[in-house]
Amino acid sequence: VTENAGTQETLAVEAANVEFYAAFESADLDRMALAWDDDPVTCVHPGWSALRGRSHVLRSWAVIMANTVYIQFFLTDVQTTVDGDVAVVTCTENILTGDDDDGGVGLESARVMATNVFRRRAAGWRLFVHHGSPVLAAGPAPDEDLAG
Amino acid sequence: VTENAGTQETLAVEAANVEFYAAFESADLDRMALAWDDDPVTCVHPGWSALRGRSHVLRSWAVIMANTVYIQFFLTDVQTTVDGDVAVVTCTENILTGDDDDGGVGLESARVMATNVFRRRAAGWRLFVHHGSPVLAAGPAPDEDLAG
Repeated sequence: VTENAGTQETLAVEAANVEFYAAFESADLDRMALAWDDDPVTCVHPGWSALRGRSHVLRSWAVIMANTVYIQFFLTDVQTTVDGDVAVVTCTENILTGDDDDGGVGLESARVMATNVFRRRAAGWRLFVHHGSPVLAAGPAPDEDLAG
Repeated sequence: VTENAGTQETLAVEAANVEFYAAFESADLDRMALAWDDDPVTCVHPGWSALRGRSHVLRSWAVIMANTVYIQFFLTDVQTTVDGDVAVVTCTENILTGDDDDGGVGLESARVMATNVFRRRAAGWRLFVHHGSPVLAAGPAPDEDLAG
């Protein structure tokens, strides 16, 4: 394995990661279904318990997409490691959402930490664990407390 | 690889997972340091942003341990997958904590979803991603909403 191959591998994983978020942004359940691997899969939405199994996980995405007027992701602090046929991406989801509670569309922003684990398949990298967690404003500020 | 070897492998990963929590329960930073792999490592404490790098991560554990009077973990819904030299454990941390804010020790319980990713080393399985996230009481109840 050459250095270049390693880079190509990482790029392919990060493309799969971006595709997962693009599927959500476009509210395309078929595209979301293609992003996920076969069972066993696990999905933790921010603040939720774990959902196990493709049918359970994809149903949750259908519900979330149906209740999302507008959503856009800006990924930062993306770190990718590839070991054999498994890749782990950790990143910060900077999220812009729109809701139409008051007739118009109001925009809100939020920050979520994500761990996404992919398995290499013949057709490409497929997600088998997605774990998103809210960054709580009331929580500690580790970067400030622990820096230096 | 025989079925039995697969089982032995899974048991070894789950033992490493239990050891990580035991290190926290015993507030033993040396033991915690042994549970973690070499860099790059990532740790997301519940409600926090991601911490990158062994020194940053271990410093956070030192701070957390110093501020924890008593903590005990009961792990449930543990699911382990092993692919080559990478293992992923997802589980529910049922946590009992004690604090001495009022002079005595009051017990509180909490529930955290965890994704723990391990890498196989000569000396055993070592943690390189720990992601814990709070289960928010105010959040949706996916099991109820989506069951059936």
